[in-house]
Amino acid sequence: MDERLTEMTVRNLVERLATSDPVPGGGSAAALAGAMGAALVHMVVQLTVDRPAAEGHEDALGEIRAGAVAWQSELLSLTELDANAYQAVVSARRLPRESEHDRETRDVQVAAAIREATRIPLATARAASEVLDLAQRVATIGNRNAVSDAGVAALLAVTGLRGAALNVQINLPYVTAGDQLRNEARAEIDRLLASVDDRERAVRAVVAERLR
Amino acid sequence: MDERLTEMTVRNLVERLATSDPVPGGGSAAALAGAMGAALVHMVVQLTVDRPAAEGHEDALGEIRAGAVAWQSELLSLTELDANAYQAVVSARRLPRESEHDRETRDVQVAAAIREATRIPLATARAASEVLDLAQRVATIGNRNAVSDAGVAALLAVTGLRGAALNVQINLPYVTAGDQLRNEARAEIDRLLASVDDRERAVRAVVAERLR
Repeated sequence: MDERLTEMTVRNLVERLATSDPVPGGGSAAALAGAMGAALVHMVVQLTVDRPAAEGHEDALGEIRAGAVAWQSELLSLTELDANAYQAVVSARRLPRESEHDRETRDVQVAAAIREATRIPLATARAASEVLDLAQRVATIGNRNAVSDAGVAALLAVTGLRGAALNVQINLPYVTAGDQLRNEARAEIDRLLASVDDRERAVRAVVAERLR
Repeated sequence: MDERLTEMTVRNLVERLATSDPVPGGGSAAALAGAMGAALVHMVVQLTVDRPAAEGHEDALGEIRAGAVAWQSELLSLTELDANAYQAVVSARRLPRESEHDRETRDVQVAAAIREATRIPLATARAASEVLDLAQRVATIGNRNAVSDAGVAALLAVTGLRGAALNVQINLPYVTAGDQLRNEARAEIDRLLASVDDRERAVRAVVAERLR
């Protein structure tokens, strides 16, 4: 990776996703989906404040806005970090394995890189889950003319969460046995995935109801 | 809109989504999600060809690749077109309505703009549905080490499809009564949404199975 993903043009990023280089891959795309979800939550808040719909919801809207700003920034950062982490895995796997010493060095590097490439999408799944909460709240109280945008925000958050979870799951078996992260990450992903179906259905129902 | 969305940096696009300007909004974000899905389908094909996994699937992989290239390009174009179409709605609604003549002119412009702002996300939903098919196929036959990427591609395609459908649904009631597009768009969206739950479940099952 010779350039920061978030400083590329949108067209270049999409073209880079499409190449045979595994970096950037699904982990970065999932984080960026979550960041776009947070941005749309923010837009719906902006289209709601100072309008009749905001009455009585001023504090909630302020909270949702603050959350959206924070998670948008975090998820843009995770878009980069995921690519860096996976690049480190690819580089470590290419280290020489001629001598016993080579192999030991390589094993240590691969293990450290895999650990990071598991920890980062775990953070993405957690952040996207928070964006899903915000999308649910703003879909319920936000400007009805922007309810489709709140719905798209929720869909993007779900994709960020589920997509990041797939990246945790594919790397987890390669995390060193005995590393606490193995059990912790599995437990957290299981917990996040256990509720996402119901949460997605709930927000879709609110959006469908308010679209009428 | 003073700049092409796909020529902005990724960071700028996300920041522009977040502003109180309703353009760009959920329609462009949905199309971009679909474009990223197509790009990841392409990456998985590239990571599969010329490897043992490709044996016997050469023709299918060639077809999937050709589809991914075409739909990626179409969905990037729809990312721009959606913003332009919705900007035209906003501009038409701001036209003067002092005289009877003003109001007639404005009504014609608003109707034409709403029609386009319905037609574009309909095209996005259709394109994203094709990407979902490609993601399903490559999740099944592609390189198992990239199955999480095929899974993220499918999630992005579903978000593109459902997100675009919300945009069609919110605009449809404002399409001129008697315009054929009203019934046609509703029928097509209903048809696409009717199968998406099952299709999403099917691809998630394939990915989960191959992740083991």
